[in-house]
Amino acid sequence: MKMIDSLQNPSVKKWKKLHTKKEREKTNTFLVEGFHLVEEALKSDVEITTIIVDQDANLPRALDFSNVSMTYVSNQVMRAISETETPQGIIAVCKKQETKDISSGRGQKWLLLDRIQDPGNVGTMIRTADAAGLDGVLLSPGCADIYNAKTIRATQGSLFHIPVVTAELTTWLNTFKEDSVPVYGTALEGGVPYQEMDSNPERGFALIVGNEGSGVDASLLSQTDKNLYVPIYGKAESLNVSLAAGILLYYLRG
Amino acid sequence: MKMIDSLQNPSVKKWKKLHTKKEREKTNTFLVEGFHLVEEALKSDVEITTIIVDQDANLPRALDFSNVSMTYVSNQVMRAISETETPQGIIAVCKKQETKDISSGRGQKWLLLDRIQDPGNVGTMIRTADAAGLDGVLLSPGCADIYNAKTIRATQGSLFHIPVVTAELTTWLNTFKEDSVPVYGTALEGGVPYQEMDSNPERGFALIVGNEGSGVDASLLSQTDKNLYVPIYGKAESLNVSLAAGILLYYLRG
Repeated sequence: MKMIDSLQNPSVKKWKKLHTKKEREKTNTFLVEGFHLVEEALKSDVEITTIIVDQDANLPRALDFSNVSMTYVSNQVMRAISETETPQGIIAVCKKQETKDISSGRGQKWLLLDRIQDPGNVGTMIRTADAAGLDGVLLSPGCADIYNAKTIRATQGSLFHIPVVTAELTTWLNTFKEDSVPVYGTALEGGVPYQEMDSNPERGFALIVGNEGSGVDASLLSQTDKNLYVPIYGKAESLNVSLAAGILLYYLRG
Repeated sequence: MKMIDSLQNPSVKKWKKLHTKKEREKTNTFLVEGFHLVEEALKSDVEITTIIVDQDANLPRALDFSNVSMTYVSNQVMRAISETETPQGIIAVCKKQETKDISSGRGQKWLLLDRIQDPGNVGTMIRTADAAGLDGVLLSPGCADIYNAKTIRATQGSLFHIPVVTAELTTWLNTFKEDSVPVYGTALEGGVPYQEMDSNPERGFALIVGNEGSGVDASLLSQTDKNLYVPIYGKAESLNVSLAAGILLYYLRG
């Protein structure tokens, strides 16, 4: 059994660096923390380099470690690697999955995120897209990093359930059109209240939601079949983008 | 012009204490921070004791301070009172509003929160209820504090737009029944998919959502007209409670 209790250990230094996007991109790995998320990673086909466990952690029996390398560490080391205030004592080091060869295909349902800044919003929308039974989520290059600890936490494991891919959205809009999948933008100006659209789940859809401040990019909006908005009936200035996405996804899927 | 630059100033000590629920309850006051939220407070009928301004703050011209007491403070003092990492340099000290004499009334629409723990969820749901044009939000005594800085931030000002009242929910269920307002709980077990309900905005509704872990209390669920749930079509275990509330509110209001 490997047991690490020094903060100077090269592996510890390496894992701590994974808190930064730069290092995650360089090494193509990321951290997944906590019982529930590690369990979801174990159940998925994501490749796990090792699972780091606090020597004093009380691991739930439900976790099946039979096919994975384990590394035990001291309390102090766990606190250094952890990105939470009260670590549960378990972190999986995972390999990023190669972008799968995704074909959109007729009748499919996709959520497209255009420059969403907040990791919590990105994660929550991945979770909601999973819940709504979508085929996947596409993120524009300007979105918050999928592999940020906050994003992963907010997905509650849905990152491991459906394809989540960073891609130039414009390229994909053409693919959706070739497959006769209707593309909907979201925009207050020039949009229609979503209730005016009939939901037609058989045809599928691609829904684009945009940046918390500036919304969906105008050039994307000009390429859609229709632009929708969620009406505000009270005095609120706007809805949180995750909320708007959830309302639209559940409406469009029927 | 009052100008405070000592952390030992009694007012500064008093304001800092307002970070705790205990002190907010004792003094019946709370802090509202940042340009947007202070502007919303100024536009509302909430009573403002004073507005604390960083001497170096660049205040937007849109803010109208003509009828309110101003207190200028040093950078250091502002950082001590602020509950954010990068203070905008403006904080309003507000009086809690007395619970208005709210009558439910036929056709009204209410959101009821049963022991929601996360201030972000409480705030987001107040904002969403406002957006959906609801008549108000009722919080059970076990909910996160309405006047917590995180709650207020998540409301984005909607706290000042609609009545938000802490109350025993059971008492209110009777009132809704007397007014023929249908009461819907949310529950996976014993509930029906929300799409099976016809939305009937004329009748109004009271929707109860519950604790992030345990859901709506069983005794409340037994007093509803019907219990609903948002179906999960993918592999996600659940939806975030704010998301579920948003989807249901927009569906029920039609």
